Amino acid sequence: MALRLGAIVEALGGELQGDPGLSIARLVPLQDAGPDGLSFLSHPKYLKELAASRAGCVIVSPALREQAAARGAFIVAADPYLYFARLTQLWKREHARPDGVRIHPSAVIDPEARVDPTARIGALCVVERGARIGAGTVLKSRVTVSEDCVIGARCLLHPGVVIGADGFGLAPHEGAWVKIEQLGAVRIGDDVEIGANTCIDRGALEDTVLEDGVKLDNLIQIGHNVRIGKHTAMAGCVGVAGSAVIGAHCTVGGGAIVLGHLALADGVHISAASVVTRSIHKPGHYTGMFPIDDNAAWEKNAATLKQLHGLRERLKALEKTTMQDKNS
Amino acid sequence: MALRLGAIVEALGGELQGDPGLSIARLVPLQDAGPDGLSFLSHPKYLKELAASRAGCVIVSPALREQAAARGAFIVAADPYLYFARLTQLWKREHARPDGVRIHPSAVIDPEARVDPTARIGALCVVERGARIGAGTVLKSRVTVSEDCVIGARCLLHPGVVIGADGFGLAPHEGAWVKIEQLGAVRIGDDVEIGANTCIDRGALEDTVLEDGVKLDNLIQIGHNVRIGKHTAMAGCVGVAGSAVIGAHCTVGGGAIVLGHLALADGVHISAASVVTRSIHKPGHYTGMFPIDDNAAWEKNAATLKQLHGLRERLKALEKTTMQDKNS
Amino acid sequence: MALRLGAIVEALGGELQGDPGLSIARLVPLQDAGPDGLSFLSHPKYLKELAASRAGCVIVSPALREQAAARGAFIVAADPYLYFARLTQLWKREHARPDGVRIHPSAVIDPEARVDPTARIGALCVVERGARIGAGTVLKSRVTVSEDCVIGARCLLHPGVVIGADGFGLAPHEGAWVKIEQLGAVRIGDDVEIGANTCIDRGALEDTVLEDGVKLDNLIQIGHNVRIGKHTAMAGCVGVAGSAVIGAHCTVGGGAIVLGHLALADGVHISAASVVTRSIHKPGHYTGMFPIDDNAAWEKNAATLKQLHGLRERLKALEKTTMQDKNS
Repeated sequence: MALRLGAIVEALGGELQGDPGLSIARLVPLQDAGPDGLSFLSHPKYLKELAASRAGCVIVSPALREQAAARGAFIVAADPYLYFARLTQLWKREHARPDGVRIHPSAVIDPEARVDPTARIGALCVVERGARIGAGTVLKSRVTVSEDCVIGARCLLHPGVVIGADGFGLAPHEGAWVKIEQLGAVRIGDDVEIGANTCIDRGALEDTVLEDGVKLDNLIQIGHNVRIGKHTAMAGCVGVAGSAVIGAHCTVGGGAIVLGHLALADGVHISAASVVTRSIHKPGHYTGMFPIDDNAAWEKNAATLKQLHGLRERLKALEKTTMQDKNS
Repeated sequence: MALRLGAIVEALGGELQGDPGLSIARLVPLQDAGPDGLSFLSHPKYLKELAASRAGCVIVSPALREQAAARGAFIVAADPYLYFARLTQLWKREHARPDGVRIHPSAVIDPEARVDPTARIGALCVVERGARIGAGTVLKSRVTVSEDCVIGARCLLHPGVVIGADGFGLAPHEGAWVKIEQLGAVRIGDDVEIGANTCIDRGALEDTVLEDGVKLDNLIQIGHNVRIGKHTAMAGCVGVAGSAVIGAHCTVGGGAIVLGHLALADGVHISAASVVTRSIHKPGHYTGMFPIDDNAAWEKNAATLKQLHGLRERLKALEKTTMQDKNS
Repeated sequence: MALRLGAIVEALGGELQGDPGLSIARLVPLQDAGPDGLSFLSHPKYLKELAASRAGCVIVSPALREQAAARGAFIVAADPYLYFARLTQLWKREHARPDGVRIHPSAVIDPEARVDPTARIGALCVVERGARIGAGTVLKSRVTVSEDCVIGARCLLHPGVVIGADGFGLAPHEGAWVKIEQLGAVRIGDDVEIGANTCIDRGALEDTVLEDGVKLDNLIQIGHNVRIGKHTAMAGCVGVAGSAVIGAHCTVGGGAIVLGHLALADGVHISAASVVTRSIHKPGHYTGMFPIDDNAAWEKNAATLKQLHGLRERLKALEKTTMQDKNS
């Protein structure tokens, strides 16, 4: 399995300086590359790695043309990281092993589900009654798409994904909980990717919605009635509680929690492990995370934190005393 | 698919003011409702939405009778949210499509498992040897109930649930870990609901226990030997470490962590994303969560937090100096 | 099902004081044990429970020989907890019900996968093309091992585990995300245990690696390119972001988050729910966690925390004033 440099630039563009006949056997990080390896330099801070790399060829930005030339073959691309992304897609396409099965015989698909003839359904998936799977969409193994849920075109759902389980709807009554049946479904746009074991609950009355281009990592929980805007991306282990409305082009870091019924504007970026407790109306970068420290230092600071309001009062009192002293 | 208002109050009670022949086509939020929609008002703060709503009928509390009358048909119920919950159940029952399959043929059920004749087992479930599934209980698709685990009556287990995986039991030995086989099982009471991809580990020696009426959301981890009291509810992404004992009528917010071997009294409410590091013996509401802020402000405060104990010492010293000055 | 004390010490060693013919029907905690129960005392702090226990026999350390002798039969072992771990293994072995099925007929195994003849594959598992499963390894039900991923010998993968889903690789382009195909795989060493619904992503270019003896609890997310050193253990709900390199003999508490591209030295211990935001080069115990409090106290302290940097400035100013006053 290999690709010649000439074939790569023919497919993806970019300016090749070097032998188009050179055969590339692997895509590989700069520091691990040998003469049959193709690497990329996404950031000038890796210039030292570039100089030291034994890669057969590197992808660089126009600004680094000179440094790249000093060591051998290179491809100039306006955005090397994007070029590399497309190269991984070309690589996968070229090396794909034929796989004739469109719907794995072990999948359980309800006769009243509608699966586009170009979609692919992996082993041991479940597609329930009334569900719809769009063109070119791929369900890897062991995915559940529940009743009446709709998945758009060119989506990718990884193993263990659960679309359309009941939302967490409960009314308290005499010390127990009465179930609120979840009558909505889930509607997912085009070009959405959903990571392994991630769960997206059906809506209570209306649908839970993921707009086009949303990307969710693994083990994420999306509650009922949530709406996620276009091209928003979330890292692993995020939890979004019910009825939150998240804008387009947002990012949410791993392990963050968004409480229910909140609104996040377009272009809001939440740091990992932060808890969003109020709506955020302005784009920007938001964080709330206890800084890690060695345990002994943490213990002291955490204990003091429980007296923080009192410390502020003492500081205030002291300021007042000092001012009075000065004025007396 | 529709229900007349008359049929609704006949089934659920409540006082109808309006035409019992009016046909309701959907249950829908106030602001989205049209003349064929039935909505409810759970809280007086939505009075403006009530006035503006085009809903064919609304469910209100006795206190709001007057405001509801000003706009059209309404049902008076002592607890509109509870009434609405029961209405969703009625709605689901009335609109259920016939589904003859009690045990899906793709499910793998051990001959030595005992499944009540009224239970339903979904596609691609696994019920292992010695497991017992109670009357009226429903396993949606792709649920695993491991050896000897017992599920009570009228429970609902969502896709991907794992009951009775081994707890995390390890004894350190010469730098490696020796497995402690988990010889207990899981015992789940009646009327328990367990969300998608949630895991409940089997006990080490005795059983992990969920009492009647417990409600767990998606992607929750319950460690071995844990005991959860009646009607306690937990939101998504919660983790409860081994041997914790949680009381009845508690709530745990999304993403919270309860450390191992702790006890929580009945009626304890833990906020989302809080970490319970000590036993809590008094009912009440407990929180520990770093407040979110714009990232620049957070960075300043977080850096200062790492010096907090030192700041307290400086404040103390200053107080002493100031007192001495005053007394001198 | 029972074991005589004599058979136990014959198999596991240790010094028995008492009747070797005594029949043990269960392994059980000290406080719950009856005359047919065998318990252990791992820590002197449980001495009171020892005295009160009705257990037929207890496992104790040499130091507690006298106290144990005061109440009945006992086994002396250098490390009672380790002895107990091995006893659970013996117990499980002795009471194992015969189970003839090596590869469950419902499992979907690609003809180009290689499964060792001594491995066991549970119901509804998926083992994809090019995957390899080592000797003595057990996949419980509903496990996915994706293309080209390698699992070593004597591993145990619990239900719902996903090995080798795509890592979260995305290049931004004109407001949308371009997928970076993940061309690496996952390589897992020997004696690794992986908890229910845990996910381990395949590498982007090279492999994600778990070394020998790693133990992961349930619902853990391991990102692409991560490397975890020998005998490191992680509790439930942990998230490790892409390209993190974690040393050997580390422990990570439940719900902790490790950000991407960080390095943790050997012997680093991270407390539950802490967020690792920087590399840690020295072994030790590290924590970052907001202390839980009753909600009213938390609210006051959290509000003050948002002014903490300002408080420090005010304290500084006051110190300066007071010093000037003293010196004037």
